[in-house]
Amino acid sequence: MDRFFSQRARNVRRSVLRELLKFTQRPEIISFAGGTPDPGTFPWEELADIAAREIRANYARSLQYSTTEGDIGLRRELLEIARAEGIRADLEEIVITTASQQGLDLIAKTFLDPGDVVYVELPTYIGAIQAFRAMEAKLVGIHLEEDGMDLDALRGRIAADKARGERAKFIYVIPDFQNPAGVRWSEEKRLGLLDIAAEEDLLVVEDAPYRPLRFAGDPVPSLKALDREGRVIFLFTLSKILAPGLRIAALIGSREVVDKIVAMKQAADLCTPALTQALAREFLRRHDFEGHVEKIRACYREKRDRMLDALERYMPEGVRWTRPEGGLFLWVTLPEGVDTERMFPKALERKVAYVIGAPFFVDGTGRNTMRLSFAIATPEEIEEGIRRLAEVVKEELAALSTTAQI
Amino acid sequence: MDRFFSQRARNVRRSVLRELLKFTQRPEIISFAGGTPDPGTFPWEELADIAAREIRANYARSLQYSTTEGDIGLRRELLEIARAEGIRADLEEIVITTASQQGLDLIAKTFLDPGDVVYVELPTYIGAIQAFRAMEAKLVGIHLEEDGMDLDALRGRIAADKARGERAKFIYVIPDFQNPAGVRWSEEKRLGLLDIAAEEDLLVVEDAPYRPLRFAGDPVPSLKALDREGRVIFLFTLSKILAPGLRIAALIGSREVVDKIVAMKQAADLCTPALTQALAREFLRRHDFEGHVEKIRACYREKRDRMLDALERYMPEGVRWTRPEGGLFLWVTLPEGVDTERMFPKALERKVAYVIGAPFFVDGTGRNTMRLSFAIATPEEIEEGIRRLAEVVKEELAALSTTAQI
Repeated sequence: MDRFFSQRARNVRRSVLRELLKFTQRPEIISFAGGTPDPGTFPWEELADIAAREIRANYARSLQYSTTEGDIGLRRELLEIARAEGIRADLEEIVITTASQQGLDLIAKTFLDPGDVVYVELPTYIGAIQAFRAMEAKLVGIHLEEDGMDLDALRGRIAADKARGERAKFIYVIPDFQNPAGVRWSEEKRLGLLDIAAEEDLLVVEDAPYRPLRFAGDPVPSLKALDREGRVIFLFTLSKILAPGLRIAALIGSREVVDKIVAMKQAADLCTPALTQALAREFLRRHDFEGHVEKIRACYREKRDRMLDALERYMPEGVRWTRPEGGLFLWVTLPEGVDTERMFPKALERKVAYVIGAPFFVDGTGRNTMRLSFAIATPEEIEEGIRRLAEVVKEELAALSTTAQI
Repeated sequence: MDRFFSQRARNVRRSVLRELLKFTQRPEIISFAGGTPDPGTFPWEELADIAAREIRANYARSLQYSTTEGDIGLRRELLEIARAEGIRADLEEIVITTASQQGLDLIAKTFLDPGDVVYVELPTYIGAIQAFRAMEAKLVGIHLEEDGMDLDALRGRIAADKARGERAKFIYVIPDFQNPAGVRWSEEKRLGLLDIAAEEDLLVVEDAPYRPLRFAGDPVPSLKALDREGRVIFLFTLSKILAPGLRIAALIGSREVVDKIVAMKQAADLCTPALTQALAREFLRRHDFEGHVEKIRACYREKRDRMLDALERYMPEGVRWTRPEGGLFLWVTLPEGVDTERMFPKALERKVAYVIGAPFFVDGTGRNTMRLSFAIATPEEIEEGIRRLAEVVKEELAALSTTAQI
């Protein structure tokens, strides 16, 4: 069989994470591993009514093929949300995608030839790593600090790559409450990144799935809203603020970019389901979307607070974590020498689960890190789960220090 | 901007067809152009009830992420349909795709490096051409006869390509009521194709969207059912027999192939919408699927009969067409010298539309051909539309013969 596979297929493997997640689904385990939103936040009553109505009254459209660009009413609704964010775009500058993962796939296909360089955060979203690697890109990781990417390091790396004749295409970032680290970029760093992109003539891909989920801190403009040169491609999804089971997202970019992305989408899936587009459109039209998102923020704020409290209370010295102002995740860094993958089975024994950090690092580092989601567990489970996890960590540290003494 | 686009993006254009289709949607035009099924065949009442129930009773699953492989209950239902077709496969050998277009995209990514050869029918499905070209494949067309591909020509071409050191990966065919030509392969040719694939060590991609829509003639086994060597990858969709707005299809292949396809799908869209998967699953579970498809067959049989009658009655000498035993399309070949693209605006003037044939030919031929869909128009519109079209053809032939005399 091997002779048939393409070069890119040889490089691509199933995500370690998705395989590990299978172990975490036993009901007795308190899992901070999943990347999914809390189903309690899904507006299921509204969506059930809309679904029945949209199918009955409108089946010739809602059950038929859609256009590749996507439902025009839905695009209008999403442009309005974008406008409230300071992003001005028209109908030719937006395309509906089968969730943001497809946006990443289409970006990879549209821009990346084998060997092309993409700059990413260390750590960054695994789905982006997979999409870019599937098109045989070379991913270069730049350290993520508390307020965004280390821009000096980025500048230095770009210069070095240029000197070696590498062909760079874009910088991929998740500036708001990043998956996995929960970090938010400062406005200063956002402006700095755009300066670098302009100087070095690079595109910027801004992935913003968690941006609406800010439950603390002051607003900071998106890169796309700050963009004066049309360099930023903006990915926006309803997965975390409506329901991931609809697979509805949008990509906003220049006309030239959107035109190519639409051509690529024709070859990828022709169109996103008309039915789930209709559900999203009608929810946005008929319901109080901002009020709905505010309820989700309150839900995650409470859970984050509980997780931060518990970490403070139970974790031993030397363990550090981020304090996210939004999103679903926080990021834990254990002392050097701890390997969260090796520790994983011990956590499962104690009936608590997390996601190992290393797969989020394109440079092979991050073995002492882990991602914790506060989205799914109840506040009580969060308390108890962190207590268990702290025990595991303490044992691991004790074992390490014994080994060190020997 | 141009410097940013990948090589493959430079090759990919929006489908001419989808652009032409925009002109055909004025209500006064009788259109045989669309590739969509008749919305009257959608079981909308059942789907409306299922949607409301699946969201209300089961939102934590139906609105959440699905697995990449797809809903296990839906995979079981589809395996049962496949089994009734003589195709034996297990849960590790099937993956749900976001309709068959995604199946084609994932196959292209999994198998095709730039320059790899794929053998296709002349004419063949445009979505497949787009998906394979997007991965920079070299498409080689083999003439489609009334009972399937010209296998002698295929054999000769493979030998010639081999002698030149070309790297061939698979043969792509739509053996049942093909889009665009409406042709069905004989059992003899199916067995012959499998022999060639075995001799030459090639894979076979069998795209079967119209296979369940046989309304005349005797059953002929699918390539996948005849396959003894695990060379066939089978694409099966619910778009034409349930509703395209759900975007639900499946790919059946060996474990090794499905494993790679699943890894590629993680990078492409993570998962197909859980909601539309749930709708398909529950429809297949609770309703009389075979009875439902039988009604669709009766609908299209009547429309095909009406179109064949009208063609017989109105078309001038020298015009030939296929007599499909299933599916949605028939294929018209006009005398040499007629150019259906040049004739297209004249047809629109007469308020009738078709799809030009040339884009379905990877070798640049087919300028005197057109595809007619009998799926959407009513029987009365079919009669009137063919009458109008025949007038256009007669005028075109008269103009041609005048030009020839000068």
